Amino acid sequence: MSKIEHLGIAVKDLSVSIPLFEQLLNTPCYKTEAVASEGVETAFFKTGDSKIELVCASNESSTIAKFIAKKGEGIHHIAFEVENIEAEMKRLQALDFELIHKEPFKGADNKMVCFLHPKSTNGVLIELCMEIKD
Amino acid sequence: MSKIEHLGIAVKDLSVSIPLFEQLLNTPCYKTEAVASEGVETAFFKTGDSKIELVCASNESSTIAKFIAKKGEGIHHIAFEVENIEAEMKRLQALDFELIHKEPFKGADNKMVCFLHPKSTNGVLIELCMEIKD
Repeated sequence: MSKIEHLGIAVKDLSVSIPLFEQLLNTPCYKTEAVASEGVETAFFKTGDSKIELVCASNESSTIAKFIAKKGEGIHHIAFEVENIEAEMKRLQALDFELIHKEPFKGADNKMVCFLHPKSTNGVLIELCMEIKD
Repeated sequence: MSKIEHLGIAVKDLSVSIPLFEQLLNTPCYKTEAVASEGVETAFFKTGDSKIELVCASNESSTIAKFIAKKGEGIHHIAFEVENIEAEMKRLQALDFELIHKEPFKGADNKMVCFLHPKSTNGVLIELCMEIKD
């Protein structure tokens, strides 16, 4: 895991939270992206060598809608950049970390991603992500 | 705010969580530090240009003990590096962000710090931190 690629923050309403985080971070939102496969809309901000990703449910069955119903708005996940996602998944499985997904899938921001189950990582939802190279 | 300086993760037992995060991040814990003023013990890991800070309560009145009793282990705060903490506090106050502390105070890792109240930041506890220069 080479760095924190982004931090995902669950929010109810991007039209409220985008200007709020622009003020907070003192930097503009540079991209929004809908990810239909996950039922979310996302908004990105740069901070140093990492990003803040706001994640908003686009339907009620989205995991983000369920997260907010249970815990409220707040930090949802940490995403670490990896060079080779399949090798990193194998390394972590061999150490008894539990993967939610057995195969990487296409996430936001041109990345192949997978998630580790928080019960094996001190309650922290962790995403592995690898840039898709054309 | 120039970058994510660190991510704070609340844990119950450093003797369990330090080896767990060493395996997860594939990097050694390079420092532990007790912060008596906050009633916590901390453990640090490098990841890219940022750090992961495990935070463990050293007494029951610590805010970390209360956080874990209410929410369980997990991500506790995001800390952003700032060049001039007093100027940044003034900037954020003028934008109606609520500061928990009116003055910066000495935190872990040779930093002056202050926190923003999560109710003004979409449920995210945010720390500002500035390196103390000798």
